[in-house]
Amino acid sequence: MFHEAIKVIVVTEKFVQDRVCSLIESCGGKGYTLVSAGGKGFHHLHATDDKASVVEGFGNIKIEVIVRDREIADAIASSVMDQVFGQYPGIIYLEQVEVWREERF
Amino acid sequence: MFHEAIKVIVVTEKFVQDRVCSLIESCGGKGYTLVSAGGKGFHHLHATDDKASVVEGFGNIKIEVIVRDREIADAIASSVMDQVFGQYPGIIYLEQVEVWREERF
Amino acid sequence: MFHEAIKVIVVTEKFVQDRVCSLIESCGGKGYTLVSAGGKGFHHLHATDDKASVVEGFGNIKIEVIVRDREIADAIASSVMDQVFGQYPGIIYLEQVEVWREERF
Repeated sequence: MFHEAIKVIVVTEKFVQDRVCSLIESCGGKGYTLVSAGGKGFHHLHATDDKASVVEGFGNIKIEVIVRDREIADAIASSVMDQVFGQYPGIIYLEQVEVWREERF
Repeated sequence: MFHEAIKVIVVTEKFVQDRVCSLIESCGGKGYTLVSAGGKGFHHLHATDDKASVVEGFGNIKIEVIVRDREIADAIASSVMDQVFGQYPGIIYLEQVEVWREERF
Repeated sequence: MFHEAIKVIVVTEKFVQDRVCSLIESCGGKGYTLVSAGGKGFHHLHATDDKASVVEGFGNIKIEVIVRDREIADAIASSVMDQVFGQYPGIIYLEQVEVWREERF
């Protein structure tokens, strides 16, 4: 049987992966999935700085974490925004999902 | 024009990829997308076994299949839970999506 | 604070990646994420042509773009359908997401 949950997705530069994963765990995330990614983005945070805002090639990482509580999702997003995206480009967004065995998340 | 559909996502170890894909097809899934992944997860099934529950590096696979019928999505999830996740760690979850040309799914 | 947005996902062959990304930008997409993918799909467009419809190995690409306006999402989907999927196999679908800092998308 499926239960509602929230997936938080962070796309950022690979060298801040460990920092993001530590924040996820300290906010209460019980696990995460990593996928190597590339891309291009004027929606990255330093939109006024062309060099920083355009991230090309596969030097990016997509980090996904599923949590049951909206509060944990919001805490992860706030932490990553404050402690990572102040200095490094990236995007963060949420998706509604349904998980099996909700006690694992 | 878009039509509602369901995406089933399985994240598990690479060596059970063929087994999961066979189950998807036998349940009525018409296609799937594979992405190489890594991660760490206390939400994996053998949560009481530290060695099995922590899956790191990029030895994982993310398998995504889109289907139109909820019944097929549920059948895929049940089959993977019963026939794969009894022995191997992994997670399974659903997302609502909208597809173009629904007759293809 | 999160705001509603739409993620458009295209899965297709790698050699049409540049064409799809150009269409995304010309329709108003401000950035995209690329992930290397494989898969198998009878839901690909040339379903009557076995050779074209079965795309295996990791010669595929998953392209994700998040936009705020449904009109832009629809324009991207229409353009890719008309100008790429007439000749090459692929799928396109949408997901509802919530983004932080909506002015970036």
